[in-house]
Amino acid sequence: MHNDKQIAVPKDELSSRALAALTAAGASTASAEAAVRAMMHASRVGVDSHGVRLTEHYCNMLGGGRLNRNPKLQVRRTAAASAMIDGNDGLGHYAAYAAVETGIEIARETGIAGVGVEHSSHLGAAGAYAVAGAEQGFITFATTNTDAMVTLFEGAQRFHGTNPLAFAAPVPDRRPWLLDMATSSIPMNRVLLHRSLESALPQGVAADAKGEPTTDPHKVEMLLPLGGEEYGYKGAGLAGVATLFSALLTGTTLDPDFIPMYGGDNIKYPRNMGHFVMVIDPGKFVGAPLFGLAIQSYLTALRGAQIRTDGRVMAPGDREWEEMDRRDREGVPIDPDTAKFLRF
Amino acid sequence: MHNDKQIAVPKDELSSRALAALTAAGASTASAEAAVRAMMHASRVGVDSHGVRLTEHYCNMLGGGRLNRNPKLQVRRTAAASAMIDGNDGLGHYAAYAAVETGIEIARETGIAGVGVEHSSHLGAAGAYAVAGAEQGFITFATTNTDAMVTLFEGAQRFHGTNPLAFAAPVPDRRPWLLDMATSSIPMNRVLLHRSLESALPQGVAADAKGEPTTDPHKVEMLLPLGGEEYGYKGAGLAGVATLFSALLTGTTLDPDFIPMYGGDNIKYPRNMGHFVMVIDPGKFVGAPLFGLAIQSYLTALRGAQIRTDGRVMAPGDREWEEMDRRDREGVPIDPDTAKFLRF
Repeated sequence: MHNDKQIAVPKDELSSRALAALTAAGASTASAEAAVRAMMHASRVGVDSHGVRLTEHYCNMLGGGRLNRNPKLQVRRTAAASAMIDGNDGLGHYAAYAAVETGIEIARETGIAGVGVEHSSHLGAAGAYAVAGAEQGFITFATTNTDAMVTLFEGAQRFHGTNPLAFAAPVPDRRPWLLDMATSSIPMNRVLLHRSLESALPQGVAADAKGEPTTDPHKVEMLLPLGGEEYGYKGAGLAGVATLFSALLTGTTLDPDFIPMYGGDNIKYPRNMGHFVMVIDPGKFVGAPLFGLAIQSYLTALRGAQIRTDGRVMAPGDREWEEMDRRDREGVPIDPDTAKFLRF
Repeated sequence: MHNDKQIAVPKDELSSRALAALTAAGASTASAEAAVRAMMHASRVGVDSHGVRLTEHYCNMLGGGRLNRNPKLQVRRTAAASAMIDGNDGLGHYAAYAAVETGIEIARETGIAGVGVEHSSHLGAAGAYAVAGAEQGFITFATTNTDAMVTLFEGAQRFHGTNPLAFAAPVPDRRPWLLDMATSSIPMNRVLLHRSLESALPQGVAADAKGEPTTDPHKVEMLLPLGGEEYGYKGAGLAGVATLFSALLTGTTLDPDFIPMYGGDNIKYPRNMGHFVMVIDPGKFVGAPLFGLAIQSYLTALRGAQIRTDGRVMAPGDREWEEMDRRDREGVPIDPDTAKFLRF
């Protein structure tokens, strides 16, 4: 999504301005800080679609009434290793980080914890929460369902969201192993980029209004699940896993039933979005020291694996952490609308 | 894999003969019954590669010493919601079903349970264990790592196994929602089938000795991860998730380090394979009745979704349960070698 119209700004200044904007829109300090933390994760690792560009959208939703400006989270411990958090319709990031912290607190004692979130809203990049757990030494899985955008295998309507599955694991003396993946091959904003560039899409990533695969970005009405035309039943099943944990297990909204995140006039009512976080303490399985050695051996083998001519083997997260280093050094690129909104 | 040389046999007779063969090879009744239960799940739902054809292989390994004929499982509760099971190098199915039962017992109290398995062996189809939990009312995730067969994204060597991720969830009055997927697009035996048929493979599923994608089944030396040439980093990451939970968390063997399942002379030594099972009680989240209604609504919406011309939308598991009904009615097809071994 890089282009000449972007400007690069220092991360700390970007973070302060996003926080100021959210608090000016009425968000409580705690919920605004959570949103900025998650957006900055995304912006720093290069997932601009889930980064600070969302500040303006969240401000609009805080103003419109969809988002509760001053949410009071309710954490209900439902059993020894499980909890439900009521997000009180605030910024989803606030509830999602609370789910990670609750999960860690529980898993320290029980070995594993499952935390469902209800009455929440858009949480940004699910990877932010998986990383938050891994940075404290816990294997963490975070997922959410989202607005319907992706067809079923051989389907002809938007059914699942791009439903992310995010896993992270601690690595001694390094940043976490991190897999934060949409269960579609590409996000919808990739289609928009191809439209603006007048370039064809890859095969098997998107479909027209009849569900027929197309590479013409102007004809795209829905995305195809990961696996494309032949193996998309796998991607569709994985999107269903996100819905299973995030919506069915928590009793929240199904992907096709969300009030649209964008567009539509309804910014008054909450969307009752659900999330799910699982936290595991390696100390209660093989033990933290042996787990540390095992993941180091694994990553050493992986990074030393034979590669294809012109290929490059990277562990999940390597690309993201490299981008973070680069952006921390050179500034975080933001688009013109976001620059204007944040007065850069 | 259907062909004219296959014969269809009644499931109960097939099951008895497989059990008789394993016990004749010295397997304890308990471990043999577990193996037959898992193999019959695979054979009935149509996953022949993991079905009763493995009986002969397991018998050889019981005879060779790789598999302990009379394993004594040790279940060690490591915390309130976590356990490790030592499979004592017996048939992996025995340890894996024990992991599900242990997980259920724990999750009934704690809401969620994580059970790692060490000193185990090949468990057949991971879906068998996910289904076992779902049939008792629990959302169940089961995974294992396996012999290296799949390259990394842009890699040029076998690194991960076809590492399955299996999820199942209870559905009121119906068989479970079931996703049992390899993290490669196809299994290696699909390549062998294409070799014998002299037919080209689909694009982006397999590679030659240099890791270059090929559709010529005779040139295939490794499989590509789900997502193919463009998005294979997602499939490779998911294969890593299986390794993370099954091997790194349990301290067992990494995919490239296994004594080969097939080939090689070494059938004396155990392979120390690991698995991981997670069990969730919906009763400790939204509640079992509301979960039941939610998954019914979801499946109704899914089955009623608009479809592509000539397409067919199915929920995960629908194809498998249809095949099970058909095979229960018409008999389970088995290949000539298996028919001979089981004296059909």
